[in-house]
Order: sequence, then structure tokens, then C-alpha cells
Amino acid sequence: MEVLNERLFSQHEADLLFEIILNRRDVRGNRFSDRLIEEEKISQILLAAVNAPSVGFSQPWEFVLVKSKEIKEQIKNTFNEENEKAAALFKDEKQREYNRLKLEGIFEAPLNIAIFYSDVDKPVLGQTSMMEVGLYSVVCAIQNMWLMARALNIGMGWVSIIDPEKVKRILKAPENKKLVGYFCLGYTDGFLKQPELELLKWEKRKGMSEMIFNDTY
Amino acid sequence: MEVLNERLFSQHEADLLFEIILNRRDVRGNRFSDRLIEEEKISQILLAAVNAPSVGFSQPWEFVLVKSKEIKEQIKNTFNEENEKAAALFKDEKQREYNRLKLEGIFEAPLNIAIFYSDVDKPVLGQTSMMEVGLYSVVCAIQNMWLMARALNIGMGWVSIIDPEKVKRILKAPENKKLVGYFCLGYTDGFLKQPELELLKWEKRKGMSEMIFNDTY
Repeated sequence: MEVLNERLFSQHEADLLFEIILNRRDVRGNRFSDRLIEEEKISQILLAAVNAPSVGFSQPWEFVLVKSKEIKEQIKNTFNEENEKAAALFKDEKQREYNRLKLEGIFEAPLNIAIFYSDVDKPVLGQTSMMEVGLYSVVCAIQNMWLMARALNIGMGWVSIIDPEKVKRILKAPENKKLVGYFCLGYTDGFLKQPELELLKWEKRKGMSEMIFNDTY
Repeated sequence: MEVLNERLFSQHEADLLFEIILNRRDVRGNRFSDRLIEEEKISQILLAAVNAPSVGFSQPWEFVLVKSKEIKEQIKNTFNEENEKAAALFKDEKQREYNRLKLEGIFEAPLNIAIFYSDVDKPVLGQTSMMEVGLYSVVCAIQNMWLMARALNIGMGWVSIIDPEKVKRILKAPENKKLVGYFCLGYTDGFLKQPELELLKWEKRKGMSEMIFNDTY
């Protein structure tokens, strides 16, 4: 049996991937439309996820698709609590700026997806010296989804200002599951040309030379 | 100033992204050629990385490009030590199978890249309730690199069977850096049609219905 795939991609095809990467944005509630996402598109996004790399081919990802308004309300409550605590960490003008930002789209996005890592009770190949690589596999799946959503002209945003233990209880997740991320997905009226926090000069873009080292630091 | 990007991708373009995702593989030492990677291609892979999403636009990633044979030897030593311990976790036929696998390509790949998370000493927007999202930003960058490498017909493999503290010392990384992953990159004679561990029936592919839940578990 021939096990090698001879497919070579062209520079033009690599450039298209780069264009998708460059145009992907974290989309928040002020940008979502309430147009429903077609089931076929949701499937394409989930198929991108499960074809991510995973340590020892463990595929440790699980997806809870949230559409229920009642559940979204509970998630929004933990966001509100955590966001109030978070705002207090910033001072003066930075805090006022923080409070002007819309940092989630739980209600505005027709689809929310909670993504969990599922721990297994046996040794996983490659997950023996750095136990966190199982979680990292799930993040690889998330980035695949984010790119696939963008290629389908669907916005996706990461809501990280939540209490993961509360989200676990709200979604009735068993003990051996760990929340990796909570996401909002929906169509949008457009993607910002640059990351919002760059446009607003909240943080500035780093130069490549600051981040790249040769052989050692 | 117009801040919205009106670029819509076609289903054909989304399908090409899916093809790249589907053809990406974890490439090991038995598949690398010693052909050097052009500087231009390395730049394209690193540009894909730094255009990943990052929490609070913190861009917490740093890249150590390793080509030195002496440093590779030290990395290989920690791999050998950790791999011997790892093999002992598997029993009987599974252990024999484990020992037949080539799980890294440190010497065979012309380029190794160690990727670190750089911690900052101030609050990061969005990294206040789930501190691990900074690390996850770095993993998003890694997945962008992996896809870009594949689109450029360059293989990339993740070496996770290493002692991260030893790697930190070998690469003279300052205290506030955390190793996220160590990678081997090089041209290859071809990409496997399926993940190697699936081909070898080490683990089987999960069905979508096992991994997807609606509203709650």
C-alpha cells in the first residue's frame, strides 16, 4: 500500500493560507450578526478541529455546542463577575479604556462552543515528560477551527474572562474534563483590518528581531 | 479610516485550507532530507507564527532557531533519557512497538526551533481568570507554523519527550521563559497519507459523535 501523499502545494496556495492567517480576527459581540450558521459550515469547522495534530494520536478534544439562551445567561454571569475583577487590575485611563471594550459575544453570536480536554487514565505516547502537551493538542484544534471559520467568512472570538470551574458545572462536564476555551461564532459585517487592540494602541506590535534568537538566547 | 476588511473567501479557498489541514503530518527523523530550508521560507513560517491570535495582543512567543550540532547533541541527550523512562511505561508488545518508533528528528532535520512563552510582569487583558491562555497563544502560533510549513512542502515534527528545564538551561533561556515546544523542520520525501500512529493502529480514530455534545454533556 502506498502510504505517501505526493501532493505538493504551490507558492500561490501557500500565499492563500497566509492571507487567511493574516485576515483572521478575534470577533466580539459588536460585530456578530444573528444570521444562523448552516449545519454544513459547522461540520466543516469541526472537521478542521479533529484533523489537528494530537500527542500520541490521543484526540483529547471534546466540543459542547451551546445554543440555549438559559445556558448562555449562566455563562454571561460568570463573565460579568470575572470581568469586574479584571477591570480592577487596570488603573486610571487604562481602566476606563478597558471598560469601554466589548470583550465577548455570548448572546450576540448564534453559536457558542466550549472546548474541553478529556484526560485519559493510561499513558499517552509523547505525553510522558511534558504533561501539558495534551492540552496543547486541543489548542492546535482550536487554531484550525479559527482559520477554517475565517475561510468560511464566519467570525470566532475567544472568551477567556470566565471561571472555568463554573463553566464546567454549568455544562455538566465530568470530573476528568478540563475547559480549554469558550468561543463565540457567527457571521459578521466585516473583519477588522488589524487586531482591535493594535488599532486602539492598547499594545503595540513587536518587531521580529525582538522574538527570534539563534542557537541560544 | 476604513477599518473593515471586505475580503470574502470562496468555498474553493476554504476547501484548499482544509486540504492543507488534512495533509499536515508530524514528521520524524526517518522522513527528513538534509536539503537546507531557504531563509525566505523560514521567514514565511515565522510570519505565520506572529500573526496568530494572542490574548490581549500580548504576542508572548519567542523562537530559538537551533542549527548548531553541539546544541542538538545536548537536546538529543535529554530526549534519550526521557524516552527511556517513557518506554518503561508501556508493557509487553506495546513496549516493543514503542521502541521501534522513531519519535524525533533532531539531527536529521536541518532546522530545530524551540518555542518559548515569555511571561510579563503586568496584567494582560484577557489573561486574568485563566492564566494558561498566554501559553495557549503560543500554541496557536505553533499550529499556524505547522500549516504554513506544510503549505511550503516542509515537514515539521513536535519533540515532546524532553526535560523542559534541561532544554531551558541548554538554550540559556532566562527565568521568565517557559518552553512550550521543541520542533524539527526540514524537507521530506513525502507526507504520510494518515497519521503514523493511525496507520500502525497504535490508536484508532474517534468518531465525531463521541466528541460532540449539545448544550451540556
